[in-house]
Amino acid sequence: MKTLRTAILGPTGYTGYWLIDLLLRHPHAEVSYLASARDELPRIDHEFPALAGRCELTCRPIDAQAIADECDVAFACLPHKTAMTHVAALLAAGVRVVDLSADYRLSDADLYESVYQTPHTDRDNLKHAAYGLPELFADDIRDADLVANPGCYPTAAALGVAPLIERSLIDTADIVINAASGTSGAGRSVKPHLHFCEVNEAFYAYACGEHRHQPEIEQTLSRVKGQPVQALFVPHLLPIDRGILETIYLSPKDSDVSIDDLWEAFVDAYADKPFVRLCRDRMPNVKHVRDTNFCDIAVKLVEQGDVRKVVVFSAEDNLIKGASGQAVQNMNVMFGMDETAGLLT
Amino acid sequence: MKTLRTAILGPTGYTGYWLIDLLLRHPHAEVSYLASARDELPRIDHEFPALAGRCELTCRPIDAQAIADECDVAFACLPHKTAMTHVAALLAAGVRVVDLSADYRLSDADLYESVYQTPHTDRDNLKHAAYGLPELFADDIRDADLVANPGCYPTAAALGVAPLIERSLIDTADIVINAASGTSGAGRSVKPHLHFCEVNEAFYAYACGEHRHQPEIEQTLSRVKGQPVQALFVPHLLPIDRGILETIYLSPKDSDVSIDDLWEAFVDAYADKPFVRLCRDRMPNVKHVRDTNFCDIAVKLVEQGDVRKVVVFSAEDNLIKGASGQAVQNMNVMFGMDETAGLLT
Amino acid sequence: MKTLRTAILGPTGYTGYWLIDLLLRHPHAEVSYLASARDELPRIDHEFPALAGRCELTCRPIDAQAIADECDVAFACLPHKTAMTHVAALLAAGVRVVDLSADYRLSDADLYESVYQTPHTDRDNLKHAAYGLPELFADDIRDADLVANPGCYPTAAALGVAPLIERSLIDTADIVINAASGTSGAGRSVKPHLHFCEVNEAFYAYACGEHRHQPEIEQTLSRVKGQPVQALFVPHLLPIDRGILETIYLSPKDSDVSIDDLWEAFVDAYADKPFVRLCRDRMPNVKHVRDTNFCDIAVKLVEQGDVRKVVVFSAEDNLIKGASGQAVQNMNVMFGMDETAGLLT
Amino acid sequence: MKTLRTAILGPTGYTGYWLIDLLLRHPHAEVSYLASARDELPRIDHEFPALAGRCELTCRPIDAQAIADECDVAFACLPHKTAMTHVAALLAAGVRVVDLSADYRLSDADLYESVYQTPHTDRDNLKHAAYGLPELFADDIRDADLVANPGCYPTAAALGVAPLIERSLIDTADIVINAASGTSGAGRSVKPHLHFCEVNEAFYAYACGEHRHQPEIEQTLSRVKGQPVQALFVPHLLPIDRGILETIYLSPKDSDVSIDDLWEAFVDAYADKPFVRLCRDRMPNVKHVRDTNFCDIAVKLVEQGDVRKVVVFSAEDNLIKGASGQAVQNMNVMFGMDETAGLLT
Repeated sequence: MKTLRTAILGPTGYTGYWLIDLLLRHPHAEVSYLASARDELPRIDHEFPALAGRCELTCRPIDAQAIADECDVAFACLPHKTAMTHVAALLAAGVRVVDLSADYRLSDADLYESVYQTPHTDRDNLKHAAYGLPELFADDIRDADLVANPGCYPTAAALGVAPLIERSLIDTADIVINAASGTSGAGRSVKPHLHFCEVNEAFYAYACGEHRHQPEIEQTLSRVKGQPVQALFVPHLLPIDRGILETIYLSPKDSDVSIDDLWEAFVDAYADKPFVRLCRDRMPNVKHVRDTNFCDIAVKLVEQGDVRKVVVFSAEDNLIKGASGQAVQNMNVMFGMDETAGLLT
Repeated sequence: MKTLRTAILGPTGYTGYWLIDLLLRHPHAEVSYLASARDELPRIDHEFPALAGRCELTCRPIDAQAIADECDVAFACLPHKTAMTHVAALLAAGVRVVDLSADYRLSDADLYESVYQTPHTDRDNLKHAAYGLPELFADDIRDADLVANPGCYPTAAALGVAPLIERSLIDTADIVINAASGTSGAGRSVKPHLHFCEVNEAFYAYACGEHRHQPEIEQTLSRVKGQPVQALFVPHLLPIDRGILETIYLSPKDSDVSIDDLWEAFVDAYADKPFVRLCRDRMPNVKHVRDTNFCDIAVKLVEQGDVRKVVVFSAEDNLIKGASGQAVQNMNVMFGMDETAGLLT
Repeated sequence: MKTLRTAILGPTGYTGYWLIDLLLRHPHAEVSYLASARDELPRIDHEFPALAGRCELTCRPIDAQAIADECDVAFACLPHKTAMTHVAALLAAGVRVVDLSADYRLSDADLYESVYQTPHTDRDNLKHAAYGLPELFADDIRDADLVANPGCYPTAAALGVAPLIERSLIDTADIVINAASGTSGAGRSVKPHLHFCEVNEAFYAYACGEHRHQPEIEQTLSRVKGQPVQALFVPHLLPIDRGILETIYLSPKDSDVSIDDLWEAFVDAYADKPFVRLCRDRMPNVKHVRDTNFCDIAVKLVEQGDVRKVVVFSAEDNLIKGASGQAVQNMNVMFGMDETAGLLT
Repeated sequence: MKTLRTAILGPTGYTGYWLIDLLLRHPHAEVSYLASARDELPRIDHEFPALAGRCELTCRPIDAQAIADECDVAFACLPHKTAMTHVAALLAAGVRVVDLSADYRLSDADLYESVYQTPHTDRDNLKHAAYGLPELFADDIRDADLVANPGCYPTAAALGVAPLIERSLIDTADIVINAASGTSGAGRSVKPHLHFCEVNEAFYAYACGEHRHQPEIEQTLSRVKGQPVQALFVPHLLPIDRGILETIYLSPKDSDVSIDDLWEAFVDAYADKPFVRLCRDRMPNVKHVRDTNFCDIAVKLVEQGDVRKVVVFSAEDNLIKGASGQAVQNMNVMFGMDETAGLLT
């Protein structure tokens, strides 16, 4: 099989780093072009010493035409707002794109503008962007020129809740997603609250009901249900490098929903999905999915007196299944390769 | 003021250690008797080198009469089941007791037997035990000879929910308590899942709806409401030494409950409670309460479309307000001292 | 005893925070004046939420005269270079000062200028500054108006090596100090290499033979010996909040130096020093000294074939004995109080 | 190329886990036989949930003949003493072996018996065992039926010092190796000092001059020099999962040794060694080598006054280059494959 030539825009953040790492291991892809917006263009192994001896490319400017000339696919790891400018240029130049920013995730441009507080300047491409969650939307991804790679939290949430909505097993008016993420989810830029001594031995919630990933979660759940669904999303910061665990509280649709019904929904949904592991005898743990593209899921039905609750546990590596791994998975689907290529060895 | 002479039974666990630490700082108490069930009785600073130069007592056998002869009050830091044997003997010998085990927390002995899967062998004293949560039950504690020190999780839960039940602001049929605790909460004994490499960089839920602290939480909330209340309690293990954060999801009782109503309930309940800090401008964080007897609480009202949820955040140090600090606070109340003595300097 | 009124200049860093914490616990001191150079003067508990309910002072401008009017002693927690301006003014206004910066630590102003690459603008006061290591120089401190609080690394190093030099037990031409410090030692300001994800699960050496604390260490050892002593100092960054461990490699002066000689030197030096704990049966561990003003020391004599080495282990909390605790200890000595007041409860 | 069939004896420890992980990624090897001494033979993904979906083999008894029938090579991850029994049987049955225990590392059986306090029961095979450090002894490994995989600490030490001895640049009478290792180096078995709360936020030295790896280090350095060399080795425990950093203090052989000489020695030694990275512009950091088979090395020459010291920094992942990765590297060499197969993608 022909080797895919890939470009990474914005390779100096954590998602860029892990894309490089994964693509270096990929049997049918190579890293051809690292494109940075910085004034001083770094050699990537000087930026990330862990890459020494593995990748010694020097970053080049972001030049859509040059990228199109040299590459088959581009990954955009740029901040939202910056991303859409370059994505539009890349598409115009004829490169297929996986965008890891938020710019093409929300199909409703007005909602995007309200959530991200910035105009959407590429509504045309937005119309044709596929939402890159292959377990749910592989058909859209296959033929797309532009795939919006989902947010880290929305990936774990959608995989944990969608099968139960599809089977009408839960009351969609009562969805609470309690989430916790490792600190790499906050990105590599330097901020006071990310100082080691502020994060270490700490734990707290933030952005209760106000996180930008909440509308993205709701969009997916609504799409699955076929009508608007809302969810309360409450993230917390974990003093670890990587990993997301979501503990999702739901109400069963009616009184005869059984634990077997719940598992059956997951089994049906993911029987042929190599990256979802159903955990019948153990609890999902961020450490079990670290450095993998797996999402581990378990479900419990708690019945006590009059109270009946469904609790779903969904764990992933925020940088792999929640970002760069899923981006590679999307590339695999877009180019007709085995979905697991480079991701399951 | 006369100095209280104190005994600690079971001083070689984490709660014992922190009791010693707190009592050494206490202006009106001293550590007089360390009583251990071990065959080899250790010098306490050999067991805990951090105590070198501060406390060099050698443990003695657990002898109720000797303790009664030398001490005014005894703290039992023994495992449940073992505790009640010794507590009964101490009370018979005339010492007042703060019991940090679970043996006297559940006033319904049958419930205790079902939850802890062991007979309750001291039902007489159980009848007179006070539940040692001073913010709610100071009057009971004041005159009690036996105070059952609450569990770590139940303390944060009760302080976070009770004022809202008292004011009838929430629907008591829908209480979800998502909790996360530092690893010291699992005790000092050696278990495979507590190996550093299993806990570090990990995060997972356990005992969903089955934790022994759930009935204790429900007992307190029921007592506040005056009729049975149930709650779903889901704990998680945090890769940190100390601290509990509970994120509590509630439904407002009716549609006109406002955020001001919610805060007012907390202000009223805790205006004169020195160890509850209401956090209007920040989120409770386990790091802010570390090494203190504070419980930090915040409340949010989230309204989105038809969905309205109350979210309470409650943080404490599981070893201080969740165990040894509260035990000292109980001692202060029992002996008519300032509630904050030794705890708020 | 009259309560000392204290001022803290630069209270928004980690050393400022711990000074406040310690002074709040101190039986004979109070925090009277928080002086900040910031444009927006914060309320201290907004800056450090952990102080809520304990200290709610609002910072005021740095005004030497106002401080002198209200306080008996001032602690300067300012960056070097900034510190000396304000210290000079404070002394002129009649307040005694403990300076936690580097500005008065090196008695040779030329050396200071070379090491810190900035002119020394207060050579007059430098002449009279006492070096605030009470275990070695209490007599100087007692009558000083200006005490230069030692650096964190130099404290552990001096306490670990001085007794062996004093007794002429080691070859002062071969001193290697391998040190490791928790991240709080790098201060609270925001830098890329202090991002949680850069420090967590990492460990590396830095500034090998070039750290600014090396000349300070050498100054103390030279003073003890009475002639110039050099040392190689190699610090490492630890992924923990607090604590310094120094592992110090020395050569015995001659072949008949015994392990008893080595211990005897330490016992003699520290028999009446409450904050040095000699560890005969255990290894110094940063966790054992956390939150204390102790420095834990052990010594080994390794003999294998022709090779004979003395290894000293010296552990302290870099923020307490290595900074704020030692500053309080200095204050205690300066004002004729028990050296341990507020530090050993 | 034919796929090698591999067996792992003792797969339920950390080195076993990482061998499985690496062999699953290896292009020319497969995991065929997991052999455990446990009474209850676990399915490996139940033992290590992270392997779910990747390897679902059930362990079988340790049966040398069955292993020989099914496998080309066996990795022994058993405790020392147990290992040699099984290794002897495997060799007799005709399987080539990489032994990760200490049993064949010390070529002097008497020294082994003194260091490990147990008789060596397989002196015959010991005579023919190759010491599996491919950067130094590839020729021995190529034809060996039994390769003794080096200890984790000795690997980093030997790679850091050998080139300087070979070039006679250092005084071999003065070698001090200050080492720090992540906690996985202590193994997976449950011990009080490995409890999360004992390791987290802690740092201390242990086994000063008495660690079993010291004779192994000395053996390699002696072999390189051609005459006995001694070294002082002082390990420390790091509160991280994985990684070793050794900071090695040496004296230059004579006064005209330059930093260029030192670097040249390393460049010469490792120019064609794919797993040693020389770090001219950065300091080796355990985080940069995590999950890789690299050993990162830097060297400094410190000259201050009369004191001249060479300091070498050597970092590796204790579970990869220090154990399982090196074992795979040895397998690659033994079977004539590219040394980097499965290790550098």
